[in-house]
Amino acid sequence: MIHISESDIKGFERFYRANLINSISGYKPAMLIGTANEKGLTNLAMFSSIVHLGADPALIGFIQRPLGQSGHTYYNIKETNCYTINHVHEGIVDQAHFTSARFAPEVSEFEACALTPAYISGFNAPFVKEAKVKMGLEFVEEMPIKRNNTILVIGQIKYILLQEGCLEVNGNINLQHAATVASSGLENYNLVRHFKSLPYAHADEIPKF
Amino acid sequence: MIHISESDIKGFERFYRANLINSISGYKPAMLIGTANEKGLTNLAMFSSIVHLGADPALIGFIQRPLGQSGHTYYNIKETNCYTINHVHEGIVDQAHFTSARFAPEVSEFEACALTPAYISGFNAPFVKEAKVKMGLEFVEEMPIKRNNTILVIGQIKYILLQEGCLEVNGNINLQHAATVASSGLENYNLVRHFKSLPYAHADEIPKF
Repeated sequence: MIHISESDIKGFERFYRANLINSISGYKPAMLIGTANEKGLTNLAMFSSIVHLGADPALIGFIQRPLGQSGHTYYNIKETNCYTINHVHEGIVDQAHFTSARFAPEVSEFEACALTPAYISGFNAPFVKEAKVKMGLEFVEEMPIKRNNTILVIGQIKYILLQEGCLEVNGNINLQHAATVASSGLENYNLVRHFKSLPYAHADEIPKF
Repeated sequence: MIHISESDIKGFERFYRANLINSISGYKPAMLIGTANEKGLTNLAMFSSIVHLGADPALIGFIQRPLGQSGHTYYNIKETNCYTINHVHEGIVDQAHFTSARFAPEVSEFEACALTPAYISGFNAPFVKEAKVKMGLEFVEEMPIKRNNTILVIGQIKYILLQEGCLEVNGNINLQHAATVASSGLENYNLVRHFKSLPYAHADEIPKF
Protein backbone atom coordinates (compact mmCIF):
# COMPACT_ATOMS: atom_id res chain seq x y z
CA MET A 1 0.00 0.00 0.00
CA ILE A 2 1.05 3.56 -0.77
CA HIS A 3 0.40 5.83 2.24
CA ILE A 4 -0.21 9.53 1.63
CA SER A 5 -0.72 11.87 4.58
CA GLU A 6 -2.37 15.25 4.89
CA SER A 7 1.02 16.96 4.89
CA ASP A 8 2.00 15.05 1.74
CA ILE A 9 -1.21 16.30 0.09
CA LYS A 10 -0.48 19.88 1.13
CA GLY A 11 3.07 19.61 -0.19
CA PHE A 12 2.23 18.21 -3.62
CA GLU A 13 2.63 20.40 -6.70
CA ARG A 14 -0.72 22.01 -7.50
CA PHE A 15 -1.65 20.01 -10.61
CA TYR A 16 -0.48 16.73 -9.08
CA ARG A 17 -2.72 17.41 -6.07
CA ALA A 18 -5.65 18.38 -8.31
CA ASN A 19 -5.33 15.14 -10.28
CA LEU A 20 -5.08 13.04 -7.12
CA ILE A 21 -8.01 14.59 -5.28
CA ASN A 22 -10.24 14.83 -8.36
CA SER A 23 -9.70 11.16 -9.17
CA ILE A 24 -10.15 9.80 -5.64
CA SER A 25 -13.84 10.64 -5.61
CA GLY A 26 -14.29 7.85 -8.19
CA TYR A 27 -16.46 7.81 -11.29
CA LYS A 28 -18.62 10.85 -11.76
CA PRO A 29 -21.47 11.85 -14.02
CA ALA A 30 -20.46 13.96 -17.04
CA MET A 31 -23.19 16.49 -17.62
CA LEU A 32 -23.75 19.67 -19.58
CA ILE A 33 -25.67 22.41 -17.78
CA GLY A 34 -27.56 24.72 -20.15
CA THR A 35 -28.70 28.20 -19.17
CA ALA A 36 -29.59 31.55 -20.73
CA ASN A 37 -29.45 35.04 -19.32
CA GLU A 38 -32.43 37.40 -19.26
CA LYS A 39 -31.57 38.58 -22.78
CA GLY A 40 -31.55 35.01 -24.08
CA LEU A 41 -27.78 34.62 -24.56
CA THR A 42 -27.15 30.92 -23.97
CA ASN A 43 -24.41 29.26 -21.93
CA LEU A 44 -23.34 25.64 -21.74
CA ALA A 45 -20.87 24.21 -19.24
CA MET A 46 -19.51 20.82 -18.19
CA PHE A 47 -20.09 19.68 -14.64
CA SER A 48 -19.18 16.42 -12.96
CA SER A 49 -20.12 17.41 -9.42
CA ILE A 50 -23.76 16.39 -9.83
CA VAL A 51 -25.39 14.61 -6.91
CA HIS A 52 -28.76 12.92 -6.44
CA LEU A 53 -30.50 14.39 -3.39
CA GLY A 54 -33.84 12.64 -3.41
CA ALA A 55 -36.61 11.22 -5.59
CA ASP A 56 -39.72 12.76 -4.01
CA PRO A 57 -39.45 15.66 -4.53
CA ALA A 58 -37.02 14.99 -7.36
CA LEU A 59 -33.98 17.02 -6.32
CA ILE A 60 -30.54 17.23 -7.89
CA GLY A 61 -27.56 19.20 -6.59
CA PHE A 62 -24.42 20.43 -8.26
CA ILE A 63 -21.35 22.16 -6.90
CA GLN A 64 -20.59 25.60 -8.31
CA ARG A 65 -16.89 26.37 -8.08
CA PRO A 66 -15.82 29.68 -6.51
CA LEU A 67 -17.31 32.53 -8.50
CA GLY A 68 -14.75 34.58 -10.37
CA GLN A 69 -13.79 34.56 -13.97
CA SER A 70 -16.33 31.84 -14.66
CA GLY A 71 -19.76 31.52 -13.13
CA HIS A 72 -22.15 32.28 -16.00
CA THR A 73 -24.09 29.12 -15.21
CA TYR A 74 -24.71 30.28 -11.66
CA TYR A 75 -25.57 33.87 -12.56
CA ASN A 76 -27.95 32.77 -15.32
CA ILE A 77 -29.72 30.40 -12.93
CA LYS A 78 -30.13 33.22 -10.42
CA GLU A 79 -31.51 35.49 -13.17
CA THR A 80 -33.97 33.05 -14.73
CA ASN A 81 -34.59 30.43 -12.02
CA CYS A 82 -34.18 27.53 -14.47
CA TYR A 83 -31.56 25.35 -16.14
CA THR A 84 -31.12 22.07 -17.95
CA ILE A 85 -28.85 19.09 -17.23
CA ASN A 86 -27.94 16.99 -20.26
CA HIS A 87 -26.06 13.67 -20.24
CA VAL A 88 -22.84 13.61 -22.24
CA HIS A 89 -22.83 10.59 -24.51
CA GLU A 90 -20.01 8.92 -26.37
CA GLY A 91 -20.73 10.89 -29.56
CA ILE A 92 -20.46 14.39 -28.06
CA VAL A 93 -17.58 14.01 -25.59
CA ASP A 94 -15.23 16.35 -27.47
CA GLN A 95 -17.81 19.10 -27.97
CA ALA A 96 -18.85 18.79 -24.33
CA HIS A 97 -15.30 18.92 -22.99
CA PHE A 98 -14.36 22.06 -24.88
CA THR A 99 -17.29 24.02 -23.43
CA SER A 100 -14.93 24.39 -20.46
CA ALA A 101 -12.72 26.85 -22.38
CA ARG A 102 -12.93 30.47 -21.31
CA PHE A 103 -14.79 32.06 -24.21
CA ALA A 104 -15.52 35.78 -24.48
CA PRO A 105 -18.73 36.69 -22.57
CA GLU A 106 -20.73 37.28 -25.76
CA VAL A 107 -19.85 33.85 -27.20
CA SER A 108 -22.25 30.97 -26.55
CA GLU A 109 -20.56 27.62 -25.92
CA PHE A 110 -23.38 26.04 -27.93
CA GLU A 111 -22.16 27.76 -31.07
CA ALA A 112 -18.44 27.56 -30.29
CA CYS A 113 -18.69 23.81 -29.67
CA ALA A 114 -21.19 22.86 -32.37
CA LEU A 115 -24.03 21.85 -30.08
CA THR A 116 -27.62 22.95 -30.69
CA PRO A 117 -29.85 24.74 -28.18
CA ALA A 118 -33.39 23.35 -28.15
CA TYR A 119 -36.39 24.58 -26.23
CA ILE A 120 -39.69 23.21 -25.02
CA SER A 121 -42.81 25.27 -24.52
CA GLY A 122 -43.05 27.02 -21.17
CA PHE A 123 -39.42 26.56 -20.14
CA ASN A 124 -36.77 29.18 -20.79
CA ALA A 125 -33.48 27.26 -20.43
CA PRO A 126 -31.88 25.61 -23.47
CA PHE A 127 -31.57 21.84 -23.71
CA VAL A 128 -28.81 20.21 -25.77
CA LYS A 129 -30.56 18.88 -28.87
CA GLU A 130 -27.87 16.20 -29.39
CA ALA A 131 -28.25 14.76 -25.86
CA LYS A 132 -30.31 11.62 -25.34
CA VAL A 133 -31.12 12.08 -21.65
CA LYS A 134 -31.96 15.55 -20.38
CA MET A 135 -33.86 17.28 -17.64
CA GLY A 136 -35.22 20.74 -17.04
CA LEU A 137 -34.89 22.03 -13.48
CA GLU A 138 -36.24 24.86 -11.39
CA PHE A 139 -33.83 26.48 -8.94
CA VAL A 140 -34.76 25.66 -5.34
CA GLU A 141 -31.99 26.77 -3.03
CA GLU A 142 -28.28 27.48 -2.78
CA MET A 143 -26.04 26.57 0.13
CA PRO A 144 -22.67 28.31 0.38
CA ILE A 145 -19.85 26.03 1.53
CA LYS A 146 -17.72 28.51 3.39
CA ARG A 147 -14.68 26.29 3.79
CA ASN A 148 -13.74 26.67 0.12
CA ASN A 149 -16.19 29.20 -1.33
CA THR A 150 -18.06 26.66 -3.42
CA ILE A 151 -21.86 26.56 -3.55
CA LEU A 152 -24.26 23.63 -3.50
CA VAL A 153 -26.98 24.58 -5.99
CA ILE A 154 -30.21 22.61 -5.59
CA GLY A 155 -32.86 22.22 -8.26
CA GLN A 156 -36.10 20.32 -8.70
CA ILE A 157 -36.73 18.32 -11.86
CA LYS A 158 -39.66 19.74 -13.84
CA TYR A 159 -39.17 17.96 -17.17
CA ILE A 160 -37.43 14.82 -18.34
CA LEU A 161 -36.72 14.22 -22.03
CA LEU A 162 -35.48 10.79 -23.08
CA GLN A 163 -34.62 9.32 -26.42
CA GLU A 164 -36.99 6.50 -27.37
CA GLY A 165 -35.68 3.16 -26.14
CA CYS A 166 -33.83 4.54 -23.11
CA LEU A 167 -36.63 3.99 -20.56
CA GLU A 168 -37.00 0.52 -19.03
CA VAL A 169 -40.32 -0.86 -17.81
CA ASN A 170 -39.35 -0.42 -14.14
CA GLY A 171 -38.52 3.28 -14.57
CA ASN A 172 -34.77 2.85 -14.88
CA ILE A 173 -33.03 4.82 -17.59
CA ASN A 174 -30.81 2.49 -19.57
CA LEU A 175 -27.63 4.54 -19.42
CA GLN A 176 -25.70 2.05 -21.51
CA HIS A 177 -28.29 2.31 -24.30
CA ALA A 178 -28.00 6.09 -24.00
CA ALA A 179 -24.19 5.79 -24.29
CA THR A 180 -23.86 8.07 -21.26
CA VAL A 181 -20.21 8.41 -20.25
CA ALA A 182 -18.62 8.64 -16.82
CA SER A 183 -15.89 11.13 -16.11
CA SER A 184 -12.94 10.71 -13.79
CA GLY A 185 -10.25 13.05 -12.62
CA LEU A 186 -10.08 16.32 -14.50
CA GLU A 187 -9.80 15.14 -18.08
CA ASN A 188 -10.81 11.52 -18.45
CA TYR A 189 -13.93 10.13 -20.08
CA ASN A 190 -14.92 6.53 -19.69
CA LEU A 191 -17.27 4.04 -21.28
CA VAL A 192 -19.41 1.96 -19.03
CA ARG A 193 -21.05 -1.42 -19.31
CA HIS A 194 -23.52 -3.04 -17.01
CA PHE A 195 -21.89 -5.61 -14.75
CA LYS A 196 -24.59 -6.76 -12.33
CA SER A 197 -27.82 -5.79 -10.66
CA LEU A 198 -28.40 -6.90 -7.10
CA PRO A 199 -31.70 -7.23 -5.24
CA TYR A 200 -32.87 -5.03 -2.38
CA ALA A 201 -30.81 -6.23 0.59
CA HIS A 202 -32.68 -7.96 3.42
CA ALA A 203 -30.76 -8.83 6.58
CA ASP A 204 -32.20 -12.35 6.67
CA GLU A 205 -31.29 -13.08 3.04
CA ILE A 206 -27.57 -12.35 3.00
CA PRO A 207 -25.64 -14.63 0.64
CA LYS A 208 -22.84 -16.85 1.97
CA PHE A 209 -19.68 -14.99 0.99
CA MET B 1 -38.32 11.83 -27.52
CA ILE B 2 -40.24 10.70 -24.45
CA HIS B 3 -41.52 13.75 -22.51
CA ILE B 4 -42.11 13.38 -18.78
CA SER B 5 -43.55 16.31 -16.79
CA GLU B 6 -43.44 17.19 -13.14
CA SER B 7 -47.00 15.95 -12.69
CA ASP B 8 -46.09 12.66 -14.40
CA ILE B 9 -43.19 12.28 -11.93
CA LYS B 10 -45.48 12.97 -8.97
CA GLY B 11 -48.01 10.45 -10.27
CA PHE B 12 -45.62 7.57 -10.85
CA GLU B 13 -45.70 4.54 -8.55
CA ARG B 14 -43.09 5.01 -5.80
CA PHE B 15 -40.51 2.45 -6.95
CA TYR B 16 -40.87 3.47 -10.60
CA ARG B 17 -40.19 7.07 -9.60
CA ALA B 18 -37.24 6.05 -7.41
CA ASN B 19 -35.67 4.12 -10.30
CA LEU B 20 -36.19 6.98 -12.73
CA ILE B 21 -34.84 9.75 -10.52
CA ASN B 22 -31.97 7.69 -9.15
CA SER B 23 -30.83 6.74 -12.65
CA ILE B 24 -31.13 10.20 -14.23
CA SER B 25 -28.23 11.55 -12.18
CA GLY B 26 -25.96 9.33 -14.31
CA TYR B 27 -23.02 7.24 -13.22
CA LYS B 28 -22.08 7.57 -9.59
CA PRO B 29 -19.19 6.49 -7.40
CA ALA B 30 -19.81 3.30 -5.40
CA MET B 31 -18.17 3.75 -2.03
CA LEU B 32 -18.17 2.10 1.37
CA ILE B 33 -18.09 4.46 4.34
CA GLY B 34 -16.49 2.94 7.43
CA THR B 35 -17.10 4.24 10.93
CA ALA B 36 -17.02 3.10 14.55
CA ASN B 37 -18.88 4.36 17.59
CA GLU B 38 -17.14 5.47 20.79
CA LYS B 39 -17.14 1.87 22.03
CA GLY B 40 -15.41 0.67 18.88
CA LEU B 41 -18.40 -1.13 17.30
CA THR B 42 -17.81 -0.80 13.56
CA ASN B 43 -20.28 0.11 10.85
CA LEU B 44 -19.96 -0.09 7.07
CA ALA B 45 -22.43 1.35 4.59
CA MET B 46 -22.74 1.85 0.82
CA PHE B 47 -23.03 5.39 -0.49
CA SER B 48 -23.21 6.64 -4.06
CA SER B 49 -23.95 10.27 -3.27
CA ILE B 50 -20.29 11.22 -2.92
CA VAL B 51 -19.21 14.52 -4.41
CA HIS B 52 -15.83 16.18 -4.91
CA LEU B 53 -15.88 19.64 -3.32
CA GLY B 54 -12.33 20.85 -3.83
CA ALA B 55 -8.68 19.82 -3.94
CA ASP B 56 -7.07 22.41 -1.64
CA PRO B 57 -8.18 21.83 1.04
CA ALA B 58 -9.09 18.30 -0.06
CA LEU B 59 -12.82 18.17 0.68
CA ILE B 60 -15.35 15.45 -0.10
CA GLY B 61 -19.08 15.59 0.56
CA PHE B 62 -21.70 12.89 0.86
CA ILE B 63 -25.45 13.05 1.25
CA GLN B 64 -26.88 11.45 4.38
CA ARG B 65 -30.45 10.32 3.82
CA PRO B 66 -33.11 11.39 6.34
CA LEU B 67 -32.18 10.05 9.76
CA GLY B 68 -34.51 7.40 11.04
CA GLN B 69 -34.09 3.69 11.18
CA SER B 70 -30.69 3.99 9.58
CA GLY B 71 -28.11 6.65 10.25
CA HIS B 72 -25.36 4.83 12.12
CA THR B 73 -22.79 6.27 9.73
CA TYR B 74 -23.86 9.80 10.57
CA TYR B 75 -24.11 9.26 14.32
CA ASN B 76 -20.71 7.56 14.44
CA ILE B 77 -19.13 10.43 12.53
CA LYS B 78 -20.63 12.90 14.97
CA GLU B 79 -19.33 10.83 17.91
CA THR B 80 -15.80 10.28 16.67
CA ASN B 81 -15.22 13.04 14.09
CA CYS B 82 -13.69 10.61 11.58
CA TYR B 83 -14.61 8.12 8.86
CA THR B 84 -13.19 6.27 5.89
CA ILE B 85 -14.33 6.15 2.27
CA ASN B 86 -13.33 3.00 0.39
CA HIS B 87 -13.76 2.34 -3.35
CA VAL B 88 -15.87 -0.69 -4.23
CA HIS B 89 -14.01 -2.80 -6.79
CA GLU B 90 -15.23 -5.56 -9.04
CA GLY B 91 -14.24 -8.28 -6.57
CA ILE B 92 -16.26 -6.98 -3.59
CA VAL B 93 -19.46 -5.72 -5.23
CA ASP B 94 -21.70 -8.33 -3.60
CA GLN B 95 -20.30 -7.87 -0.11
CA ALA B 96 -20.50 -4.10 -0.50
CA HIS B 97 -24.09 -4.14 -1.75
CA PHE B 98 -25.41 -6.24 1.09
CA THR B 99 -24.07 -3.85 3.72
CA SER B 100 -27.25 -1.92 2.89
CA ALA B 101 -29.42 -4.51 4.67
CA ARG B 102 -30.89 -3.43 7.99
CA PHE B 103 -28.89 -5.48 10.47
CA ALA B 104 -29.50 -5.49 14.22
CA PRO B 105 -27.70 -2.56 15.92
CA GLU B 106 -25.08 -4.81 17.55
CA VAL B 107 -24.13 -6.46 14.24
CA SER B 108 -21.22 -4.98 12.28
CA GLU B 109 -21.68 -5.00 8.51
CA PHE B 110 -17.99 -5.84 8.25
CA GLU B 111 -18.61 -9.21 9.83
CA ALA B 112 -22.04 -9.82 8.29
CA CYS B 113 -20.67 -9.16 4.79
CA ALA B 114 -17.23 -10.76 5.11
CA LEU B 115 -15.17 -7.61 4.84
CA THR B 116 -12.24 -6.88 7.15
CA PRO B 117 -11.80 -3.74 9.26
CA ALA B 118 -8.25 -2.42 9.15
CA TYR B 119 -6.71 0.45 11.08
CA ILE B 120 -3.78 2.78 10.76
CA SER B 121 -1.98 4.34 13.68
CA GLY B 122 -3.52 7.57 14.96
CA PHE B 123 -6.86 7.22 13.17
CA ASN B 124 -9.91 5.65 14.80
CA ALA B 125 -12.18 4.80 11.85
CA PRO B 126 -11.96 1.39 10.16
CA PHE B 127 -10.77 1.06 6.57
CA VAL B 128 -11.87 -1.85 4.38
CA LYS B 129 -8.83 -4.10 4.11
CA GLU B 130 -10.03 -5.53 0.78
CA ALA B 131 -10.36 -2.11 -0.88
CA LYS B 132 -7.59 -0.88 -3.17
CA VAL B 133 -8.31 2.86 -2.95
CA LYS B 134 -9.26 4.33 0.42
CA MET B 135 -9.18 7.57 2.32
CA GLY B 136 -9.46 8.62 5.94
CA LEU B 137 -11.42 11.81 6.56
CA GLU B 138 -11.99 14.23 9.39
CA PHE B 139 -15.48 15.64 9.78
CA VAL B 140 -15.60 19.33 8.87
CA GLU B 141 -19.20 20.49 8.68
CA GLU B 142 -22.76 19.38 8.04
CA MET B 143 -25.35 21.29 6.07
CA PRO B 144 -28.99 20.29 6.50
CA ILE B 145 -30.99 20.35 3.27
CA LYS B 146 -34.39 21.31 4.62
CA ARG B 147 -36.36 20.60 1.49
CA ASN B 148 -36.07 16.84 1.98
CA ASN B 149 -34.35 16.36 5.36
CA THR B 150 -31.11 15.10 3.89
CA ILE B 151 -27.74 16.35 5.10
CA LEU B 152 -24.60 17.26 3.18
CA VAL B 153 -21.74 15.92 5.30
CA ILE B 154 -18.36 17.46 4.50
CA GLY B 155 -15.01 15.93 5.38
CA GLN B 156 -11.36 16.70 4.77
CA ILE B 157 -9.03 13.99 3.52
CA LYS B 158 -6.32 13.21 6.10
CA TYR B 159 -4.98 9.95 4.69
CA ILE B 160 -4.95 8.22 1.32
CA LEU B 161 -4.11 4.54 0.99
CA LEU B 162 -3.58 3.11 -2.48
CA GLN B 163 -2.67 -0.31 -3.72
CA GLU B 164 0.72 -0.32 -5.43
CA GLY B 165 0.38 0.38 -9.14
CA CYS B 166 -2.74 2.53 -8.86
CA LEU B 167 -0.98 5.91 -8.76
CA GLU B 168 0.09 7.48 -12.06
CA VAL B 169 3.07 9.82 -12.38
CA ASN B 170 0.82 12.89 -12.76
CA GLY B 171 -1.09 12.18 -9.54
CA ASN B 172 -4.11 10.54 -11.17
CA ILE B 173 -5.39 7.38 -9.58
CA ASN B 174 -5.82 4.73 -12.25
CA LEU B 175 -9.38 3.70 -11.43
CA GLN B 176 -9.44 1.06 -14.14
CA HIS B 177 -6.34 -0.59 -12.67
CA ALA B 178 -8.07 -0.44 -9.28
CA ALA B 179 -11.18 -2.09 -10.83
CA THR B 180 -13.30 0.60 -9.19
CA VAL B 181 -16.94 0.22 -10.24
CA ALA B 182 -19.57 2.85 -11.00
CA SER B 183 -23.09 2.52 -9.69
CA SER B 184 -26.27 3.62 -11.38
CA GLY B 185 -29.86 3.73 -10.27
CA LEU B 186 -30.56 1.88 -7.04
CA GLU B 187 -29.16 -1.54 -7.77
CA ASN B 188 -26.84 -1.49 -10.77
CA TYR B 189 -23.07 -1.89 -10.79
CA ASN B 190 -21.04 -1.15 -13.87
CA LEU B 191 -17.56 -1.79 -15.17
CA VAL B 192 -15.70 1.10 -16.68
CA ARG B 193 -12.96 1.43 -19.22
CA HIS B 194 -11.00 4.50 -20.21
CA PHE B 195 -12.26 6.02 -23.45
CA LYS B 196 -10.33 9.24 -23.92
CA SER B 197 -8.44 11.98 -22.14
CA LEU B 198 -8.76 15.53 -23.43
CA PRO B 199 -6.39 18.44 -22.85
CA TYR B 200 -7.15 21.53 -20.80
CA ALA B 201 -9.51 23.56 -22.99
CA HIS B 202 -8.23 26.88 -24.33
CA ALA B 203 -10.64 29.13 -26.20
CA ASP B 204 -8.15 29.75 -29.01
CA GLU B 205 -7.46 26.04 -29.53
CA ILE B 206 -10.94 24.65 -30.09
CA PRO B 207 -10.98 21.76 -32.56
CA LYS B 208 -13.06 21.98 -35.76
CA PHE B 209 -16.16 19.92 -34.98
